[in-house]
Amino acid sequence: MGTNRGDRVALAAVGLGRWGRVMAAAYRSSPVVELRTCYTRDPERRARFAADHSCAAEESYEALLARDDIDGVVLTVPNDQHAPMIEAAAAAGKHVYVEKPVAVAPADIRRIAEAVRSSGIVFACGHSARRLAGVREMRRRLEAGELGQPSLVEAIFSNERGLELKDGDWRGDPAQCPGGPLTQLGIHQIDNLNYLFGVPRRVMGIGRRGAVAVQNTMVVAALLEFDGVAGYLGADWLTPGAFTIDLYGSKARLRYDLDFSWWSNSADTDAHTSLREVAIATDSADPDGRVLAERAVPLAPRDHLREEIEEFALATRGEATVEVNLDVAIANVAVVLSVARAIDERRQVEVAEVLAELGA
Amino acid sequence: MGTNRGDRVALAAVGLGRWGRVMAAAYRSSPVVELRTCYTRDPERRARFAADHSCAAEESYEALLARDDIDGVVLTVPNDQHAPMIEAAAAAGKHVYVEKPVAVAPADIRRIAEAVRSSGIVFACGHSARRLAGVREMRRRLEAGELGQPSLVEAIFSNERGLELKDGDWRGDPAQCPGGPLTQLGIHQIDNLNYLFGVPRRVMGIGRRGAVAVQNTMVVAALLEFDGVAGYLGADWLTPGAFTIDLYGSKARLRYDLDFSWWSNSADTDAHTSLREVAIATDSADPDGRVLAERAVPLAPRDHLREEIEEFALATRGEATVEVNLDVAIANVAVVLSVARAIDERRQVEVAEVLAELGA
Repeated sequence: MGTNRGDRVALAAVGLGRWGRVMAAAYRSSPVVELRTCYTRDPERRARFAADHSCAAEESYEALLARDDIDGVVLTVPNDQHAPMIEAAAAAGKHVYVEKPVAVAPADIRRIAEAVRSSGIVFACGHSARRLAGVREMRRRLEAGELGQPSLVEAIFSNERGLELKDGDWRGDPAQCPGGPLTQLGIHQIDNLNYLFGVPRRVMGIGRRGAVAVQNTMVVAALLEFDGVAGYLGADWLTPGAFTIDLYGSKARLRYDLDFSWWSNSADTDAHTSLREVAIATDSADPDGRVLAERAVPLAPRDHLREEIEEFALATRGEATVEVNLDVAIANVAVVLSVARAIDERRQVEVAEVLAELGA
Repeated sequence: MGTNRGDRVALAAVGLGRWGRVMAAAYRSSPVVELRTCYTRDPERRARFAADHSCAAEESYEALLARDDIDGVVLTVPNDQHAPMIEAAAAAGKHVYVEKPVAVAPADIRRIAEAVRSSGIVFACGHSARRLAGVREMRRRLEAGELGQPSLVEAIFSNERGLELKDGDWRGDPAQCPGGPLTQLGIHQIDNLNYLFGVPRRVMGIGRRGAVAVQNTMVVAALLEFDGVAGYLGADWLTPGAFTIDLYGSKARLRYDLDFSWWSNSADTDAHTSLREVAIATDSADPDGRVLAERAVPLAPRDHLREEIEEFALATRGEATVEVNLDVAIANVAVVLSVARAIDERRQVEVAEVLAELGA
């Protein structure tokens, strides 16, 4: 593993598209990490990135992995490149942070799992939504018993991206993007639900195509059966953006609402969210006499993207534990694939069935 | 049929419990109807009701039906009495308004359908939620194309009533109350969804019991496949009240929210609701540049309970058409029974399968 300049963990950014730049902006000012070098195929783009971030740039991924002063790579590359690039990183002893979903092809998932496990590298998958202040507060209240016994949870993520898909877009290909918005949007909420209630046992779903030029699912409505609560997941690519979580407990219910257009500005995302609690304010033996009260729950802002990179960096030194590790990342994909299968085959699917196929 | 005093349609209130009194309060000042007489088994209760409403009172249901100056009956009696009491009213040529659900036992539904159809009486079932100003406005916008193409709809109705169920309560009996809150709460939203999108073709569901003294389902999460949109229905008896409808269209989405504690004050219910629209306010070729705007939709208050009684009354004279007629009422119950079956048998259920069993 690399030698660090000072105390900071040395990272390399790989894949310098929109998301790679968003991530770098989120962690560049972190005292925990140093963005030391970068790589993408386009020489002009990597030169610009290197200039913007005062880092080096490599002429190949192999050259980057050959550097002995790099601790880990931050991979923001197309999904079908995850498996070979993680294998190469693992072979070079570099720790890996990779964007969600870890992979959607079962063969890719098995390759990644083998590479990570046999090499012993630290592996983190980018599922930052669970680090939003409101999502953390939901779980804190749940665990503290402040909601009473939970019974139902509903999570929705939608945007209008499917309305403009062109023929040939990878998002329109069921193999690359199973369930359409389920893989791209729903997986964020699947991880949030995993964070709150674990992996569901059984799922079912409805999918719709919608009038666009591609053959993929554009709308998903799914039921997720967790231990102890019933769950609903909506993922819709044909409507203006929505990102909400409703959690119903015996003492109170919570509604979380996020303006996703602030997602990439991770230091400001929490400022564009709200968490509201509804509880019985005036109780009465007569149900008609009961009065509900709604109030805003104050949230201390965090930085969801920076936090996950910092956790990853610290974990490379044994100073933190990765929350969304390989098992969690694979479980999230297993839920995606289970719902996609439930829709295709018009039946209820046990998530264990898919997990077994993924070797998990 | 009866002779009317002046222009008004003469009604008799039958079953004078809490809901019978709420209904009478809603229509007593209507210029369309006259509450002429009443009946319930308890002599004291009917005397008090007669005094409160300046109407007569009958010593038996048979005596009430024998009056030739009564046009119709408003039945607010326990569900298992619907079939025999509707049969008796139909035999006496009295029109019938009955509370939802029309019946839950298939044999009762078949008896009611036979009585209504063979007698030719006007029949209306109390599903007033579709008359709420916000629900009407949702459909108006949908039909006017203001939402663009709809893709997904979600409806939730919850309250805490299940937390205090005692052993022996009829609500705890799956035969009398299939799906628990599905029959008592969910059916309101099933009718709203029917009003917006018709009868779903196929349903699936998850049910949970919760830690209460009875053996019935306390939480239901269901998927409803409509022609053209995917639907979700949540009905939860273990949490503070919620009544919301989210409708997602390609141009805009709508969120309707009702404080159900104002339900019984039907002239004021709409004042305790909100309808909010979210649409893209600033468009951009770059998805990250798009800005959403949320705004309140103004709603002109209506009176959901009074309106349905007035419609029923006018329909007895051929001056209106009953919106929630026998077919609609039976279709709503068919959806309830389909979801309950989907939960029990852990499979997807075609609503046509249940409709056929109900003879519909």
